[in-house]
Amino acid sequence: MNYPNNIKKQNTKLVTYDNRGMDLENLINRTNEYYLEINRALIYKKPTPIGIVEGNYKKITNAYFKAPSTLDYNGLYKGKYIEFEAKETNCKTSFPLRNIHAHQIEHIRKVIEHKGICFIIIMMNGLCYLLNGFDFIRYIDNNDRKSIEYDYIMKKGYLLKENYNGLNYLDIVDELLKENIYEFKEI
Amino acid sequence: MNYPNNIKKQNTKLVTYDNRGMDLENLINRTNEYYLEINRALIYKKPTPIGIVEGNYKKITNAYFKAPSTLDYNGLYKGKYIEFEAKETNCKTSFPLRNIHAHQIEHIRKVIEHKGICFIIIMMNGLCYLLNGFDFIRYIDNNDRKSIEYDYIMKKGYLLKENYNGLNYLDIVDELLKENIYEFKEI
Repeated sequence: MNYPNNIKKQNTKLVTYDNRGMDLENLINRTNEYYLEINRALIYKKPTPIGIVEGNYKKITNAYFKAPSTLDYNGLYKGKYIEFEAKETNCKTSFPLRNIHAHQIEHIRKVIEHKGICFIIIMMNGLCYLLNGFDFIRYIDNNDRKSIEYDYIMKKGYLLKENYNGLNYLDIVDELLKENIYEFKEI
Repeated sequence: MNYPNNIKKQNTKLVTYDNRGMDLENLINRTNEYYLEINRALIYKKPTPIGIVEGNYKKITNAYFKAPSTLDYNGLYKGKYIEFEAKETNCKTSFPLRNIHAHQIEHIRKVIEHKGICFIIIMMNGLCYLLNGFDFIRYIDNNDRKSIEYDYIMKKGYLLKENYNGLNYLDIVDELLKENIYEFKEI
């Protein structure tokens, strides 16, 4: 059918984040830069660890990417430690767990144990969700599946809204801090 | 003069850390590994940021080291954010400030402002000191010198003792936490 001004109704997914030319990593980086600018938090992407085979302090001529054992982003918010991973998937019905390495999963357990703020930002079906580390681990410990069902992510995750300054995930963290979720939960 | 068993008295500096074949970075890395093993804290050396000129996901063939804008080590201790730098100097009378980049100094100010645990471990004259970020900044703000006098480091710094598991700097952090030094001090 035709809409006013001859504009065809588009698939709603076309107006969500991933179609505006901004991938998740760039969105998060923009968000963190904004938090730095307004002095709300100090959160950085960790450099990818690299193994150097040949080179000197001026120029590296042979090196390779190492598998990370921690998560992509970490930093400081209100005196507390914060660490998270950001992952996209094109899969519409579930988030494949091969996206997160086994030692990263163990690391998430430890961050929770040491009362750090820890979560995963998942972009799928054109939307971004913050899935708390605790809910992520609880799923893994209670399921044999190799992926997390989208239903679980929608139910347990917090939908993040995009604006000009990125994805404002710290407002969700504020809510979680109010609930003392990082102080008392034990895995 | 000769000592029992014909052992000559050695300069006392020869029995301190830097002469046992362990440089400061290795000492700190060993300490952090030990903290991980006994599950006391999660503290890692940040990978050096690298700018990649040529390469693919398998092999990097042309890259260079970038200047870091944050400190070398960061992590999580008792829910709190911890970040520090470790530096050695052969200079005996003062610690040259060229060892710390201008943007790292600004970063230290921000970490303190956001109530993170922040300090510098300085190895000089064969000894290791933990100089709290606050005392480091206070010196810089009140002196025009391009180095921190050793007297100031001895007076304000906390001497770290080495043992088989490295340099146990978290015991000093515990003392500082008891004094609420990271909660109330303002620069």
